[in-house]
Amino acid sequence: MIRNLVNLKKKFDLFVDKWQPKVIAEMNDVQFKLVRVEGEFLWHQHADTDEAFLVIEGELEIDLPNQTVRLGEGEMFVVPKGVEHRPRAVTEAKIMLVEPRGVVNTGDIANEGSAPNDVWI
Amino acid sequence: MIRNLVNLKKKFDLFVDKWQPKVIAEMNDVQFKLVRVEGEFLWHQHADTDEAFLVIEGELEIDLPNQTVRLGEGEMFVVPKGVEHRPRAVTEAKIMLVEPRGVVNTGDIANEGSAPNDVWI
Repeated sequence: MIRNLVNLKKKFDLFVDKWQPKVIAEMNDVQFKLVRVEGEFLWHQHADTDEAFLVIEGELEIDLPNQTVRLGEGEMFVVPKGVEHRPRAVTEAKIMLVEPRGVVNTGDIANEGSAPNDVWI
Repeated sequence: MIRNLVNLKKKFDLFVDKWQPKVIAEMNDVQFKLVRVEGEFLWHQHADTDEAFLVIEGELEIDLPNQTVRLGEGEMFVVPKGVEHRPRAVTEAKIMLVEPRGVVNTGDIANEGSAPNDVWI
């Protein structure tokens, strides 16, 4: 199936909720997700997969066990599998995540912060 | 290994050649590559994998068997595996490719347009 092209800005305009990733495309078993973030997420890790973050708009900080990575627009970072991390944003930021199908946003922790998985927009 | 963050614009500034993808990051076995394109590439396909295109700057056209997809900045498109395609750009465009490690730019065709694989910058 040939899906239509995806315009990132137009997709971001379709939702306002925070920390709720939306799938916009797939490449094999890898999903491209958009997420609006603001404030502090919880510490978590993904035991089975790396997780790529690309900042589309705004600024994102990712706390790691021994460092904090600060990303601006057009910057990306890959959190290796099994590494604890905590994404944070002082003001709202728009992020693209790239990770395998089936990854839950809160990783090893299931709680009220866990977003529904595989939600397409 | 925790790699440093990647600034897309700074990475693009490190090279000027066209149609020669450079790897900037990996997420599991998936590579993120930057490529400058201008003019018309050759028709080809990748029998074993989808291929994702994200336009970082400029405009890209992707000819498909029965349609042409026109992508502007901030737009992405995934060419399904096995589908013949020909990327084109009237003026220079900066593109991010997302595809599994090992994919050759010319797919099923090996010729003078085939770029060295797995070249990191």
